[in-house]
Amino acid sequence: MSISKIHAISFLFGTGRCFNKNRILNFGWISRSMSTTMRAVLIRSTGDESVLNVETIPVPEISSNQVLVEIHAAGLNPVDTYIREKKFGYDPKLPVVLGGEAAGKIVKLGKEAEKKYKVNDHVICSLHAPNYGGYAEYVACDVTDLIPLTHNLSFSQGAAVYVPYFTAYKALIARCKIQPKELVMVHGASGGVGVAAVQIAKANGAVVAVSAGSEAGLKLLNDLGADVIVDHREDGHLQKALAKAGRPGFDVIFENRADLNLGSDLAALGVGGRIAIVGSRGPVEVDPRNFIRTEGSVLGVNFFKITKEEFVEFSSALVAGMEKGWLKPVVGKEYSMEEIQKAHSDLIKAHGAYGKMVLKIR
Amino acid sequence: MSISKIHAISFLFGTGRCFNKNRILNFGWISRSMSTTMRAVLIRSTGDESVLNVETIPVPEISSNQVLVEIHAAGLNPVDTYIREKKFGYDPKLPVVLGGEAAGKIVKLGKEAEKKYKVNDHVICSLHAPNYGGYAEYVACDVTDLIPLTHNLSFSQGAAVYVPYFTAYKALIARCKIQPKELVMVHGASGGVGVAAVQIAKANGAVVAVSAGSEAGLKLLNDLGADVIVDHREDGHLQKALAKAGRPGFDVIFENRADLNLGSDLAALGVGGRIAIVGSRGPVEVDPRNFIRTEGSVLGVNFFKITKEEFVEFSSALVAGMEKGWLKPVVGKEYSMEEIQKAHSDLIKAHGAYGKMVLKIR
Repeated sequence: MSISKIHAISFLFGTGRCFNKNRILNFGWISRSMSTTMRAVLIRSTGDESVLNVETIPVPEISSNQVLVEIHAAGLNPVDTYIREKKFGYDPKLPVVLGGEAAGKIVKLGKEAEKKYKVNDHVICSLHAPNYGGYAEYVACDVTDLIPLTHNLSFSQGAAVYVPYFTAYKALIARCKIQPKELVMVHGASGGVGVAAVQIAKANGAVVAVSAGSEAGLKLLNDLGADVIVDHREDGHLQKALAKAGRPGFDVIFENRADLNLGSDLAALGVGGRIAIVGSRGPVEVDPRNFIRTEGSVLGVNFFKITKEEFVEFSSALVAGMEKGWLKPVVGKEYSMEEIQKAHSDLIKAHGAYGKMVLKIR
Repeated sequence: MSISKIHAISFLFGTGRCFNKNRILNFGWISRSMSTTMRAVLIRSTGDESVLNVETIPVPEISSNQVLVEIHAAGLNPVDTYIREKKFGYDPKLPVVLGGEAAGKIVKLGKEAEKKYKVNDHVICSLHAPNYGGYAEYVACDVTDLIPLTHNLSFSQGAAVYVPYFTAYKALIARCKIQPKELVMVHGASGGVGVAAVQIAKANGAVVAVSAGSEAGLKLLNDLGADVIVDHREDGHLQKALAKAGRPGFDVIFENRADLNLGSDLAALGVGGRIAIVGSRGPVEVDPRNFIRTEGSVLGVNFFKITKEEFVEFSSALVAGMEKGWLKPVVGKEYSMEEIQKAHSDLIKAHGAYGKMVLKIR
């Protein structure tokens, strides 16, 4: 019986709910200590948090240009909840293991993959629709979707790189083309993507203004070296930030809640300013005369539209950042697989963000 | 008595209401047939149309790098009404002759100006705050603010070049960087700036979709060779235009009434699309998720922020357009100086735009 046939039989996604945890088969092609099954958070239907359940499913197979990664930590992102809810156009192919990013060790390599990586290399996996796969003990990942994880960073930090830093890099560098000395405003900067935006803006010589909504968040931003810090629970915090910076308007604004802020962002924009929209949860009223006044730009940023060329470009800049030490993800709350329903609830409802939320696998 | 002293005495802007039309003085430095006074539409206070009045005032003096232009026609633009009303931040220095553009013949040159122009040259004058000066029989214009008017175009057509074509060029070429075969939507395309946008987009190889709101306007757009024509009095006209063009979304939208259209523009934008905002008269609700969906951009365009370098670039492209024949302004209703109050009322209230409104001086 060929290996692929064995897998075809044992991969019971569509028919059974549970796999037998004790049914461990060892093949020569897999390390003797490695199970052919693994624990994973699976969704079999879209809906509220209750559709997220830990199940035992087969360890994925790899092809010649893939590696098998033993996941230690996976990133938790708001988009995971949108996919789970089939919201904003996301329509997952069910059943599916969610999770667009994970960090771990390579345990197995396809023939082609051996040219670039070896067993035990620490890596970050960028994982895509329709398979995703980060909320699991193992994942198969294309070599071209790997990012080396330097040994300075923990696996949990590694799980906080791909979605936040690539999003912030795309927004600030590729879309807004930030320049040294420009005044960059990062809203809600104490969360995962906010920390990434602050570090990227600082590394590129910008003057960085930030807001947070908790004492812990404000302290974190101070530790990160933000130049101007305001509390977004206070009225007029954008104007306060401008007054502190001594500037007439922001050059760049990083916006992940456009539904709350876009109108006031536009009013606080300086001449030639750019606003990157990374997230929004509803409509908002704006005064288009502010576009004319400043010759401002509002630029959409879609993480899922990062091209292969951009992936290569962003990866090299960010791996260099890990090596130089300016790229240092802040890990916030960590959840076990069994806590995934609570984690998804916190992703949307938690206030006073502090660092990146991570699913701790090992 | 020196010439400048005579002018200081006769230039009674702040004190008297009328000049004596018959008090014609001839100086050696001015052609014997030329009066030292002229008729002009002056405003002495900001307010409604009634502040616009024809008065007799001195012909302006010129400096070494200026020319004196005998104006034949001046362009009428919505912005003139905003300046008159002191609206949207425009605060004119009173009294002032409005009019940001005019076409006519050079009748006198300063010493430096003689190096580039000669008497009787046909030119377009770009006229700036705080002096403007287009609603008058003569204007002093810096050589660097002149655009040659080729003899293929009438003076009225010349008066329809600067504001409309520079605005459309800045929006479509400098800001949106339109590409051949891209689908460009021009709203209300039968007006002065709309015609300019259609001709520039066509000359740059775009597929041009347009809307108009009158039979005459729709016919004009057909004559101009627009590729897709829809009636903006009909519901869902943007979707109709997309269906006719067989495209999923617009690549570029030229928007001079963002307060009416920005929300629906964003919904009809294609991936990588750009919307240039040239005008707006109030706030509007938008769904920022459309920015993310398309990675779209909304770009403010401010005619008054055209730099000296851009002026040179845009001028050469547009003078080439006159010579090649694709730049052909459509003149709509013409008004005499005495009809200026009616003209200003029509600028804002008239529906079913047809070509550029012009103040006919001679």
